Amino acid sequence: MLQGNAIIGQSGGPTSVINASLCGIIQGCLAQKAIGKTLGMRFGIEGFMQGDVIDLGRETPAAIESLRTTPSSALGSCRHKVKDADFPRILDMLKKHNIHYCFLIGGNDTMDTIHRVEKYCRQQRYELIGVGVPKTVDNDLCGTDHTPGFGSAARFVALSVKQAGMLARDMRHVDQYVIFQTVGRSAGWLPAASVLAKDAEDDAPHIILLPERPFDRDRFMADVKLCYDRYGWCSVVCGEGVCYADGTPISASQVTDRFSNVEFGAMGGTSAAMMLHRMIHAAYGWRGEFQVCESLQMCAADRVSPSDVEEAYACGRRAVELAAEGKSGVMVGIIRESNDPYRWSLGTAPLAEVALGAKPMPDNYINAEGNFVTAACVEYLKPLVGPLPKYVRLAGVPS
Amino acid sequence: MLQGNAIIGQSGGPTSVINASLCGIIQGCLAQKAIGKTLGMRFGIEGFMQGDVIDLGRETPAAIESLRTTPSSALGSCRHKVKDADFPRILDMLKKHNIHYCFLIGGNDTMDTIHRVEKYCRQQRYELIGVGVPKTVDNDLCGTDHTPGFGSAARFVALSVKQAGMLARDMRHVDQYVIFQTVGRSAGWLPAASVLAKDAEDDAPHIILLPERPFDRDRFMADVKLCYDRYGWCSVVCGEGVCYADGTPISASQVTDRFSNVEFGAMGGTSAAMMLHRMIHAAYGWRGEFQVCESLQMCAADRVSPSDVEEAYACGRRAVELAAEGKSGVMVGIIRESNDPYRWSLGTAPLAEVALGAKPMPDNYINAEGNFVTAACVEYLKPLVGPLPKYVRLAGVPS
Repeated sequence: MLQGNAIIGQSGGPTSVINASLCGIIQGCLAQKAIGKTLGMRFGIEGFMQGDVIDLGRETPAAIESLRTTPSSALGSCRHKVKDADFPRILDMLKKHNIHYCFLIGGNDTMDTIHRVEKYCRQQRYELIGVGVPKTVDNDLCGTDHTPGFGSAARFVALSVKQAGMLARDMRHVDQYVIFQTVGRSAGWLPAASVLAKDAEDDAPHIILLPERPFDRDRFMADVKLCYDRYGWCSVVCGEGVCYADGTPISASQVTDRFSNVEFGAMGGTSAAMMLHRMIHAAYGWRGEFQVCESLQMCAADRVSPSDVEEAYACGRRAVELAAEGKSGVMVGIIRESNDPYRWSLGTAPLAEVALGAKPMPDNYINAEGNFVTAACVEYLKPLVGPLPKYVRLAGVPS
Repeated sequence: MLQGNAIIGQSGGPTSVINASLCGIIQGCLAQKAIGKTLGMRFGIEGFMQGDVIDLGRETPAAIESLRTTPSSALGSCRHKVKDADFPRILDMLKKHNIHYCFLIGGNDTMDTIHRVEKYCRQQRYELIGVGVPKTVDNDLCGTDHTPGFGSAARFVALSVKQAGMLARDMRHVDQYVIFQTVGRSAGWLPAASVLAKDAEDDAPHIILLPERPFDRDRFMADVKLCYDRYGWCSVVCGEGVCYADGTPISASQVTDRFSNVEFGAMGGTSAAMMLHRMIHAAYGWRGEFQVCESLQMCAADRVSPSDVEEAYACGRRAVELAAEGKSGVMVGIIRESNDPYRWSLGTAPLAEVALGAKPMPDNYINAEGNFVTAACVEYLKPLVGPLPKYVRLAGVPS
């Protein structure tokens, strides 16, 4: 096995379990005799290029173990897309620290980074083993059945929609609707996960708006009215990236013509849920609320899915095993072996393939009307999120 | 002890533990021989007047026990303010169901309702024992050290601000601020509770905006800049009811003059946090996010404070004991006996006094600058929220 130091980096938006992967990699590296120092990049490849490197071997074993249950990106994160001009500097840093093992935890862009760094090093005849560990709450990474981080964010969504749905049902004489917005950019996996909140037909969610389907305002308003007529209230879940048929995000839309689109861009300070809220209120005059939790669904360490933590850690350990076997240019992937009981194993995917693009939600996971998900989708999601708490509903026998 | 049936109602916004109080009252009533049927008002006094009454004795013991951990208002809630014209109808319903015990769980308005109903019955020579059980996440009820429901909502706030603060710290090379908005109307107790997220000086929250202090935009912008210069990022927590010195809510304010105030009222679909977000982004060009969880902080049954559940249940049981002793026209109150170890007992407060108005945050709980809370406030809050999880921060020894 190649002798040298190892470095670990974290990239992109954190998840509740990205530090569990970090924990797995650190503990894996510390157990490998061929690996000298186990180093960490502060703030990803960006910090690395600026020389911000720490010695993870100097952390206490207790601190390293605690990473398993600590949210956020303990090493610090970045969103730097490496340019060709960055490679000489990166190689200098690798040489300076005698690094021959590189582990990056992240999504598409991160896999692209390792892929290109590893390729550049090969061209320069510098031996570097690069292995990727998947991470994203968006769940849109190729080469893996699902991504570590998704299950826990999905659990936050399902719990929130379940609890707030019960509240909305019991408050329906006061407020008539509740809208929950998920993160996930143009991927619908997180809004889809809200379906797990539903046991009975009238439970939340009633309408799920996925970025995979164009938003039709008339259709939506009719659906909301139908739910109200049927249940006396309406629960809507929407992905942050839902767009009109012409590609305009609904978060950039307007209730009246008096507002300028320019002000309502993402950083102009608006949200998809708020726009839906305005539409419903304007059309029907009902009272209701919109919930925009943003990164809270990416860091709720007290709401993690147990299988997600376990898999995130295992992916980290596996990355080191692969490196020790001399495997490079691959990402660890999760293979689903069975749904009930849920069983999984670990495989690999070439970085080159993973880096190519986002994995869409399959068409058969979305209903024909495009306003809800299917039983096949529920089956896929269930083991990733784990069982939700059971709450009681009174029989309510009239007196 | 007076023979007759009992009725229980829930009013106003739910909390994570209002059903624990309901559980306490039902179990208490079922154990009293003098109490015949234990009835429930569906959707509060409003549903009661419409004849929507259920027999809680027909629920299974397991269902009743499960109420202890079930969020929302299992009986259904309302926000109806009783009018003088309502009393004859209410008395008719009491007579029809042979009700001589009335328990309402709620806040100010609810206490006012029982108070006036009880008084009316006395005038009409109908024997009714009315006892109130406190409830509100706002914690602004007189006659009790704190209100059941507050500790759990406060825990949701503290957990959220802690976790999202760690994420923001680790992402500070990408985003520069995070803004969390609490509920609580014009009471600052919930934004104040975010202070429990803070262990180290640079931990979130950095700035706490309380409705008890006027919002000064210049001052706020300077504070935000100071935090950014000091920590590289900034965490802001604001109460939903924060106002300018002239009483205008900041949620109704404008980034530019091109927007109309009318559109930006509460139902116009905006929020205090969004307006702060726009201000910061417009002034400094930074990236950041705003989090508006709304009722999610009032129903997160998996995030309850243990002492809150226990107290909510105990208040319910105590209400029945008081009624059995012939006490009427009172609300159960919580008395704080000591902070460390936390000990409490139950007392009573006359409904007439509780109904009068909201309990303000004491001045000595707010710092001189009006942008944070004091050590005295922390001491008050700590036992109500319970210990938060400990997360690790790496030592980060440079290599």
